[in-house]
Amino acid sequence: MSLLEDLQWRYAAKKMNGEQIPQEKLDYILEAARLAPSSSGLQPYKVFVISNRELLAKIKDVAWGQSQVIDCSHLLVFAAWDGYSDERVSEVFNYTMDERGLPHSTMDDYKNNILGLYEPLGKEWQADHAAKQSYISFAMAIAAAAEQKVDATPIEGFLPPKVDELLNLENSGYKSTLLLTLGYRDADNDWLVNMKKVRTPKEDFITKIK
Amino acid sequence: MSLLEDLQWRYAAKKMNGEQIPQEKLDYILEAARLAPSSSGLQPYKVFVISNRELLAKIKDVAWGQSQVIDCSHLLVFAAWDGYSDERVSEVFNYTMDERGLPHSTMDDYKNNILGLYEPLGKEWQADHAAKQSYISFAMAIAAAAEQKVDATPIEGFLPPKVDELLNLENSGYKSTLLLTLGYRDADNDWLVNMKKVRTPKEDFITKIK
Repeated sequence: MSLLEDLQWRYAAKKMNGEQIPQEKLDYILEAARLAPSSSGLQPYKVFVISNRELLAKIKDVAWGQSQVIDCSHLLVFAAWDGYSDERVSEVFNYTMDERGLPHSTMDDYKNNILGLYEPLGKEWQADHAAKQSYISFAMAIAAAAEQKVDATPIEGFLPPKVDELLNLENSGYKSTLLLTLGYRDADNDWLVNMKKVRTPKEDFITKIK
Repeated sequence: MSLLEDLQWRYAAKKMNGEQIPQEKLDYILEAARLAPSSSGLQPYKVFVISNRELLAKIKDVAWGQSQVIDCSHLLVFAAWDGYSDERVSEVFNYTMDERGLPHSTMDDYKNNILGLYEPLGKEWQADHAAKQSYISFAMAIAAAAEQKVDATPIEGFLPPKVDELLNLENSGYKSTLLLTLGYRDADNDWLVNMKKVRTPKEDFITKIK
């Protein structure tokens, strides 16, 4: 199936049936998230893969009681950097240069440019910029899940500070940004499963300037 | 090819060769962007598809002179709502209910809930929240382009207020968020084309909590 067919197939399952997804499908979805592009290639985010049922129950309580959080196979929690720093950026760029067999100094000018742009914008702007990058990775995980015929429900409706607390992120330099439940739809009990998928009509979505 | 193979194939072309992409591939990529999920299904964004060479030259000047902006086949400019309002949200929800053959009032409680959450957070937060949704759509366009073997360079490095001005967005309720050039790599002149793709190692990217 093509990506368009996969995107037509997928929907945000409102009720999952508790069935587990195979390890190789989970790995596949995580690999798509890992391969996503990000601004300057910094990948200022990571993913927590949660299958611990006690922890999931606690997360459900701070995610408006959404049942998929406990009826999923695995919950992905995306978490992004709380800011940019010379140390963090250097670590990524040095690793990249090592992998490419180039001297660390190759990226010095570029690094100084972006830090010079980001630093005056403040920690809040930086955390937000990092969070945005995690949305790209999140989308790749959604596309990969659809390709693998795994249901994936994107969840923005949760209390990030509470999830940060549950994951002990306080002094980690990361903040939770998004949840994605992976599992299988409970078609008999999901009000959304048979509803028509609705999107902005093409003529409103697209403006051509020739 | 699978999504993972597509994501391995793709890279952010730094030099494009000016070749045009077929209309059906452009349509395919735009359709993937349109089918992307968004928070509450609001799709608070749209896409400008620009092939006008004069306009592209002006956009290049406010995008750090990046040559892909003029050497691409088409430039996609993603633009997101500058805020949420009862009118905007109602329009989307009413359309959705019409398409599903349900009364408009079906979503009244839900609508009032989200407006009640968003309104106190202010216009800046709202614009940022809408911008984040556009990143998901952007990512689906990137995945679709890779599947179609069209090169796509994600560009965050531009001056949004200047692009807004060039697209006459000032009073439109939209703000530009992201650029994506579509076209074909100029392999002979692109320093990045043969560089190893580097990503955060799996063990740093993923934390499992069982």
